[in-house]
Amino acid sequence: MDPVERLARAYEAAWNAADMTALAALNAPEVHWVNVVGMHWQGFDDVAKAHEIFCQSMFKDAPIRFEAVESHVPLPGGASVAVVRWAMAAFQAPDGRAFPATRSRMTLVLIPRGDDLAIAHGANINIDPMAEPHDPMRRS
Amino acid sequence: MDPVERLARAYEAAWNAADMTALAALNAPEVHWVNVVGMHWQGFDDVAKAHEIFCQSMFKDAPIRFEAVESHVPLPGGASVAVVRWAMAAFQAPDGRAFPATRSRMTLVLIPRGDDLAIAHGANINIDPMAEPHDPMRRS
Repeated sequence: MDPVERLARAYEAAWNAADMTALAALNAPEVHWVNVVGMHWQGFDDVAKAHEIFCQSMFKDAPIRFEAVESHVPLPGGASVAVVRWAMAAFQAPDGRAFPATRSRMTLVLIPRGDDLAIAHGANINIDPMAEPHDPMRRS
Repeated sequence: MDPVERLARAYEAAWNAADMTALAALNAPEVHWVNVVGMHWQGFDDVAKAHEIFCQSMFKDAPIRFEAVESHVPLPGGASVAVVRWAMAAFQAPDGRAFPATRSRMTLVLIPRGDDLAIAHGANINIDPMAEPHDPMRRS
């Protein structure tokens, strides 16, 4: 299996099992994360803690489903950057808003770790279904 | 000036002058971009064309303002990843919706190019003002 898909499948399994140790283990020590509402978490401990807090609350009953590795571009020196597409179930945010089921595109900056890849940065962007038809470069 | 801030200032100046040649010149040939509504543009030509189309339409009177380089983390091999915070003016989307003025956090994957940095990947996420107070790692 492609190493990015293997990583994404491990992410999906850890998230859906609420296995926060397995989820955090996919991250590199220097990981930063920007979530879908623009929160910026800096460093391994903060990213792990924030994911844990949200997975045990608003995302408790909101499984994610891997859809595709849309791109995987090498960077000079061995790192790379991928875009992974996800489907996420509906959930209720801490501010009270109900968010419908959605799809997202997650930028993952990846560094080699043995035969696998570790996440050095994640940035997850919801796909806006109203905007999508107006994408001038739309492929599908 | 810090090279990420120098890049961000050049991006800001090019965007606000609608100088699409200067904006595109900041990108590496292999650049991919995920915009705030999750559109994924792949490769130099597609990214340049998509930015041009939107800067000449919905963003025509929507200047951006650089706020801060929040982080800049080196990757093995010379690339790096930064998070830059922006303020953007209100605009009207092609689907008719009016978007209010907003702030965003833009992940920029950067590779060295002479004394400067080139953008190998961009992912721009709007900061949701209703969600922000619920950030468990909030710093300010």
